[in-house]
Amino acid sequence: MEDLPRYLAIARQLESRLDSGELAPGSRLPSVRQLAAEHDVNTLTALAAYRYLEERQRVVARPRAGFFAALPGAVASGQAERPMPSVATLVDVESRMSNLIRLSAAPIRQQLHMAEAHDSLYPAQELARRMQQVLTRQPELIGAHLPMARQALLHRQISQLAAGWQLDIPHDRILFTGGITEAISLSLRLLTRPGDTVAVETPVYFGLLQTLQMLGLKALEVPCTPDAGLSLEALEFALRHGAPVKCLVTVTNFQNPTGALMPEDNKKRLLQLARRHGLPIIEDDVFGELHFSGSHPPPLKAWDRDGDVIYCSSFTKSFAPAFRLGWLSGGRHHAELARLRESSSLVSPALLLGVLSDVLGSGDYTRISQRIRQQLARQCDQLADAVLAAFPRGTRLRRPLGGLLLWVEGPDGLDSHRLLQAALAHSISFAPGLLFSAEPRFGHCLRLNFGQPWSSTLAEDVATLGALARAQLQGQ
Amino acid sequence: MEDLPRYLAIARQLESRLDSGELAPGSRLPSVRQLAAEHDVNTLTALAAYRYLEERQRVVARPRAGFFAALPGAVASGQAERPMPSVATLVDVESRMSNLIRLSAAPIRQQLHMAEAHDSLYPAQELARRMQQVLTRQPELIGAHLPMARQALLHRQISQLAAGWQLDIPHDRILFTGGITEAISLSLRLLTRPGDTVAVETPVYFGLLQTLQMLGLKALEVPCTPDAGLSLEALEFALRHGAPVKCLVTVTNFQNPTGALMPEDNKKRLLQLARRHGLPIIEDDVFGELHFSGSHPPPLKAWDRDGDVIYCSSFTKSFAPAFRLGWLSGGRHHAELARLRESSSLVSPALLLGVLSDVLGSGDYTRISQRIRQQLARQCDQLADAVLAAFPRGTRLRRPLGGLLLWVEGPDGLDSHRLLQAALAHSISFAPGLLFSAEPRFGHCLRLNFGQPWSSTLAEDVATLGALARAQLQGQ
Repeated sequence: MEDLPRYLAIARQLESRLDSGELAPGSRLPSVRQLAAEHDVNTLTALAAYRYLEERQRVVARPRAGFFAALPGAVASGQAERPMPSVATLVDVESRMSNLIRLSAAPIRQQLHMAEAHDSLYPAQELARRMQQVLTRQPELIGAHLPMARQALLHRQISQLAAGWQLDIPHDRILFTGGITEAISLSLRLLTRPGDTVAVETPVYFGLLQTLQMLGLKALEVPCTPDAGLSLEALEFALRHGAPVKCLVTVTNFQNPTGALMPEDNKKRLLQLARRHGLPIIEDDVFGELHFSGSHPPPLKAWDRDGDVIYCSSFTKSFAPAFRLGWLSGGRHHAELARLRESSSLVSPALLLGVLSDVLGSGDYTRISQRIRQQLARQCDQLADAVLAAFPRGTRLRRPLGGLLLWVEGPDGLDSHRLLQAALAHSISFAPGLLFSAEPRFGHCLRLNFGQPWSSTLAEDVATLGALARAQLQGQ
Repeated sequence: MEDLPRYLAIARQLESRLDSGELAPGSRLPSVRQLAAEHDVNTLTALAAYRYLEERQRVVARPRAGFFAALPGAVASGQAERPMPSVATLVDVESRMSNLIRLSAAPIRQQLHMAEAHDSLYPAQELARRMQQVLTRQPELIGAHLPMARQALLHRQISQLAAGWQLDIPHDRILFTGGITEAISLSLRLLTRPGDTVAVETPVYFGLLQTLQMLGLKALEVPCTPDAGLSLEALEFALRHGAPVKCLVTVTNFQNPTGALMPEDNKKRLLQLARRHGLPIIEDDVFGELHFSGSHPPPLKAWDRDGDVIYCSSFTKSFAPAFRLGWLSGGRHHAELARLRESSSLVSPALLLGVLSDVLGSGDYTRISQRIRQQLARQCDQLADAVLAAFPRGTRLRRPLGGLLLWVEGPDGLDSHRLLQAALAHSISFAPGLLFSAEPRFGHCLRLNFGQPWSSTLAEDVATLGALARAQLQGQ
């Protein structure tokens, strides 16, 4: 027990007091402050202990009231009580994403659960110097708005960058946003009203499910495979036979979580299909720049002659996560999106836009993003090899051609949610398959992040993960 | 004509071709590119010429089609056709804010129309060094999320800062946003549904009217005076006799545009009134830190024992506009607001949060904001003196005790929209009173920004503005 992280030791102790009935079901537990004082730790550690127990459904957090011992019926009952899925299921993801984000904040050594690369892949020192230079040379970048000439330059630079991806983005049709999340959220707010149905891929990243839920939207989950991405056959069937769909959100390059790259032919066919059905498309290309094959695969938008596609991209993964610079080109919806953005959050931080422009202009962006994608390609292979070596027979994966994410399909019977609980005890996290659909379809799958630099520790942790998976299957 | 800015000379030439009928009403005008080529200027200058004519309603922009000569009936007809106002008027502000923002981008020498201080008031060089140091020392700030310990520290720092304003903000009840605009927009999205009515001050800043319009909300405009801010009597009357109101948005410290500081007694009474009527309040305290009287006046939130107030603040005006760091403390709505933020734009740029924390921790924020407010206090007096000296008899203003804005009430008969058109010809801008209400109530008023450093040029421009106003009144 000596090696157990402090929060985990505290959680285990609480757990045995819950098991013994010393802490009765439904009773109020010590406040975070009290718990911290009891164990002589800081409140963050105490909080992490409670969060761990909350994750295991042993305790329940009530806003402004504190933590309570869970009632016996509540433990793990969520899944059993779930109604049978219908074609269009109201997305009810509760606070899955919040829980995952909370995991990142917890003191977990090996964090494989987010779709984020490790900080060390990004050029912090270079950017530090660059920001200093840019602000010294152009003190007006401390102001709220990027000066007009600089903004025009930045838009031309983005337009030129996108031309390399076979995109023809007019430089007056570029809108910066707070990460790609805001780009997609604005697009959904423009195209839908509460109660509407939106087509998404399944499995799909939980952030999107949470956004849909917050906007009161229903998700129509359309199958997506690691080989070819969104199934056009399934989409067409749904459009013909299902409830009206207001728009489609699709990650065409290196889908999250499957890593799928939609073939070019499918991209063209998808556009035709959407046009026939009058279906606007929100294209999420956040991973496109992380390609391993020499060039950013042309997005859907490359063939969009009619402005049907709202194209969303970001510099978060390929340049500087801390900048949160996403952008969109809204096709025929662009002017409306610009007004909606203005009334939602006005403008992006001028200084960060200025630095981006500087880096794009000097050619350094090309070099920086190139280095990031080369490192990711290596790490992808290393992680995939290790998973295949360690995981039980019947485990399948397809090596993605870009992105950050490895989608691992375990053998039948693997319960990746239980596996996560076991892994957390070893201070290893990943994203369990259940998070990626409103329906209990991917319980045997895991999403791993290959954004962590390869190391002997990571190798050991993957081996541990595999061993835990094998043990779980043998224990059944 | 030699001294006329280039864009204005081009606009004047176009105007005479429109006057003569050479360019027929309704006809398509040369493209921006063609116009630029004709006059051997860059496209931005050509665009500025069109924007100027658009502002004067001589040309009409059609998205993706270009500029057209306005039809005769369209010129200045907007006001005459406006229906008589009702108590709750659907806010229809069209794109007033966009037009104003476009003005900032245009090559206008003396910009007095925004609620922004000049770049030179902010510590660009100091921040340049600071950012370089922070990122060198903590390269992990290049990542997407502020490290947990750093985030906890920042929240404690904010909590401590707010304690100086008599606010008791628990450090787990602080949410960063993209400027205060996002804080207010999120709060409105949480508290309302399209079609609902929201109480606002009148006059009120047009950004809020635009946000309401984009969210499909109606504005109930409640009178606000430069002396005491929102009229509680009018609000109470409206709550008793009017349509149901979902929430109130109020700027209690140095209101925009009037500069009003709500007296403490009124703040307490407003809270009681809101509680009796079950009315949630969104408090916008973006100007509170720009006080001239020694301390940040306690916001409404200081007396909010029941969590009825969503308190919104920002570091934009008092520290670094380019950072766009707003924040809120959501009272009993906090947890829901946090989830809504997560699904709308996830997180704020980690690097900027890290630098803010550094500046708060070192005490430098106190020094920086102090210097900014001292300079603003001087500039406020200088501008107010100049306006009183130059403007026609009957002009009234109340010197605000903080903020950035001087609200000038012209004599009866002054048309500040026409005055703006005359002022733009001298390359001077301001915000005309008509922008600050959906009803044509403040046509004789102007909002001037005293964020510009005082100079002989500014003195001359204020004299020119006063002379134009006098000329307009004499010409009637």
